[in-house]
Amino acid sequence: MNYFEESLKLHEQNIGKIEIKSKVKVETRDDLSLAYTPGVAEPCRKIHENEENVYKYTSKGNIVAVVTDGTAVLGLGDIGPKAGLPVMEGKAILFKEFANVDAFPICLDTKNVDEIVKTVKLIAPGFGGINLEDIGAPRCFEVEERLKKELDIPVFHDDQHGTAIVVLAGVINALKVVNKKMEEIKVVINGAGAAGTAIAKLLLSSGVKNLIACDKVGILYRGIENVDDAKKELAKVTNPDNIKGTLADALVGADVFIGVSAPGIVSQDMVKAMNKDSILFAMANPTPEIMPNEAKAAGARVIGTGRSDFPNQVNNVLAFPGIFRGALDVRAKEINEEMKIAAAYAIANSISDEDLNEDNVIPSALDKKVAANVAEEIKKAARATGVARL
Amino acid sequence: MNYFEESLKLHEQNIGKIEIKSKVKVETRDDLSLAYTPGVAEPCRKIHENEENVYKYTSKGNIVAVVTDGTAVLGLGDIGPKAGLPVMEGKAILFKEFANVDAFPICLDTKNVDEIVKTVKLIAPGFGGINLEDIGAPRCFEVEERLKKELDIPVFHDDQHGTAIVVLAGVINALKVVNKKMEEIKVVINGAGAAGTAIAKLLLSSGVKNLIACDKVGILYRGIENVDDAKKELAKVTNPDNIKGTLADALVGADVFIGVSAPGIVSQDMVKAMNKDSILFAMANPTPEIMPNEAKAAGARVIGTGRSDFPNQVNNVLAFPGIFRGALDVRAKEINEEMKIAAAYAIANSISDEDLNEDNVIPSALDKKVAANVAEEIKKAARATGVARL
Repeated sequence: MNYFEESLKLHEQNIGKIEIKSKVKVETRDDLSLAYTPGVAEPCRKIHENEENVYKYTSKGNIVAVVTDGTAVLGLGDIGPKAGLPVMEGKAILFKEFANVDAFPICLDTKNVDEIVKTVKLIAPGFGGINLEDIGAPRCFEVEERLKKELDIPVFHDDQHGTAIVVLAGVINALKVVNKKMEEIKVVINGAGAAGTAIAKLLLSSGVKNLIACDKVGILYRGIENVDDAKKELAKVTNPDNIKGTLADALVGADVFIGVSAPGIVSQDMVKAMNKDSILFAMANPTPEIMPNEAKAAGARVIGTGRSDFPNQVNNVLAFPGIFRGALDVRAKEINEEMKIAAAYAIANSISDEDLNEDNVIPSALDKKVAANVAEEIKKAARATGVARL
Repeated sequence: MNYFEESLKLHEQNIGKIEIKSKVKVETRDDLSLAYTPGVAEPCRKIHENEENVYKYTSKGNIVAVVTDGTAVLGLGDIGPKAGLPVMEGKAILFKEFANVDAFPICLDTKNVDEIVKTVKLIAPGFGGINLEDIGAPRCFEVEERLKKELDIPVFHDDQHGTAIVVLAGVINALKVVNKKMEEIKVVINGAGAAGTAIAKLLLSSGVKNLIACDKVGILYRGIENVDDAKKELAKVTNPDNIKGTLADALVGADVFIGVSAPGIVSQDMVKAMNKDSILFAMANPTPEIMPNEAKAAGARVIGTGRSDFPNQVNNVLAFPGIFRGALDVRAKEINEEMKIAAAYAIANSISDEDLNEDNVIPSALDKKVAANVAEEIKKAARATGVARL
């Protein structure tokens, strides 16, 4: 199937992918009087008396804004808010399909951090959560940080944390397959943008001690100059021996490679220099940092990519629907580190021990029980960390 | 039926009234690859090449934002954006039910005109039109004016123009019943807020020459001091003889009374002082400026109210769904005066000559053919005035 041509047809035939549906009927005069005036005044009054009633009488508690500025859309880059809309609508229907979360695209006509933060704050009353999407690094870090501080509903940048959670799930299961421990492995991440940075932080929160982040300039180290502040910050918490050099240098003796970078950047020689039973998540799209068959031939044991036609696809749809389902269900104030780790374990544990093998460390993107498992664990973690309001 | 209690139940059982629905299926790996990555990249690219393609490949062209700041919600006043949400959701489902327009509530956490205008501009890329709702006067005038200038999609403040259009439709038909002419009648409007001002302007655009606007301070006249600028502006284009005095003074010799003011403010004596075959639209809610039976007993020939349990209900649902249906269908850049007048005639003409009588000058709010008629006339008027892009 030619996905590009068929996708155009699908979008054109349906003129987009989302519509609004009424949950109540509007056929008789009474229907009208209850759903609208005069009856609707009463739920309004109840919410005015007590703001929390907005969760009781409106759809807010199940509606998530999928917010983008269109600056980092898929692999297409800064194509603007209108051109980003098909992705946001796609996200919205996945939210609904996988977790019955109502998500609505908000495409912002600005790239200014202050304006993005302000706008999202001003439209927040109608939403139960904010999913940030395809906002370029490093602006995405500040946008998320500020919104998390200023809003009392969960804010989650999927390109960072969704990817990080699924990668962590893959690492958890891959380590079971090769019988290694999180605390003992050496991890190398190539690509220190939104996803790479979040993956690094989540792996460190999950017990990894030895982690080196690389970017176009090579290994990030304390004292590095020619990179942005976010990367300098990352260098402070990674690379314990503060080594310098290239990606190839970093990979010597590594157990896990995680690529969110560029096609073909990892050679078979680099894989050969890694430790025995190496694990690679090569997520450059559509062409991975190294093709799975080449990596295997060079000695890799587990390899995952971003593609659905190879085993172990890292697909965010395993994470975001269940995460928001759980967060909305307990009316969580935020999605914290503990909840993200819980989500990763829920994804990993969706594969039973007997089904677990090197070609099946990440569940299928179509496995709808994963979202339910994630939601359950998110709820528990939200309660355990005191951020649940229900 | 106790509308208030039943409405609470309805809202609580359904937890609000709207949900998001997918127009495409997401069941197989191919579905996922077309609706989302990798296929979705292609519609993104096409829109990036040519922005107009956003109407071809996304739902934008059928989605209207229902925007409020929660400052003038129903008769409840400034109850805030969250408490306004049930009304906005109600509006959204009426849009869908009556005209298959997808409308989504945007409740803004600000009353500042600059912030409202800025926010709506920044979220506009994803919407095909903006329906302003329940924003208090006089701020609503500036918000609408500025957004109309700065956006290339239709912007329509329903509390102003929706009401004005339905009142004009009622006046058109009532004049047929009593056999009077628009150019010859004297009209008195009581209440110079958002609706009253818009009604005055639309009647003047429709041929009325002698129109007097009153407010709490009495008749508005040129030189009046103790009112806001919007009311001073209104005084400049109304009250041709520049008379001063009370509502009672204004009503002497009037043919039409239009009330968007307060319960019981019109006495039978005032009706008696009006011309023969007087017409009253007494829209204070839930208790009109004068009850229909009292007005009739005092000599009124046609009386309409805002209530569904009396004849001739002025209900905006007769206007806004069809107006946006038509405007979206021809991708109108704006909703101009000619389009509003065309909508009023379409509503009026939805009652056939044989069905027309003093108790049936405004169609039933449930008559779904009205929206279709309005949409047709809106399209024609948009094309005739050069604001249609299709």
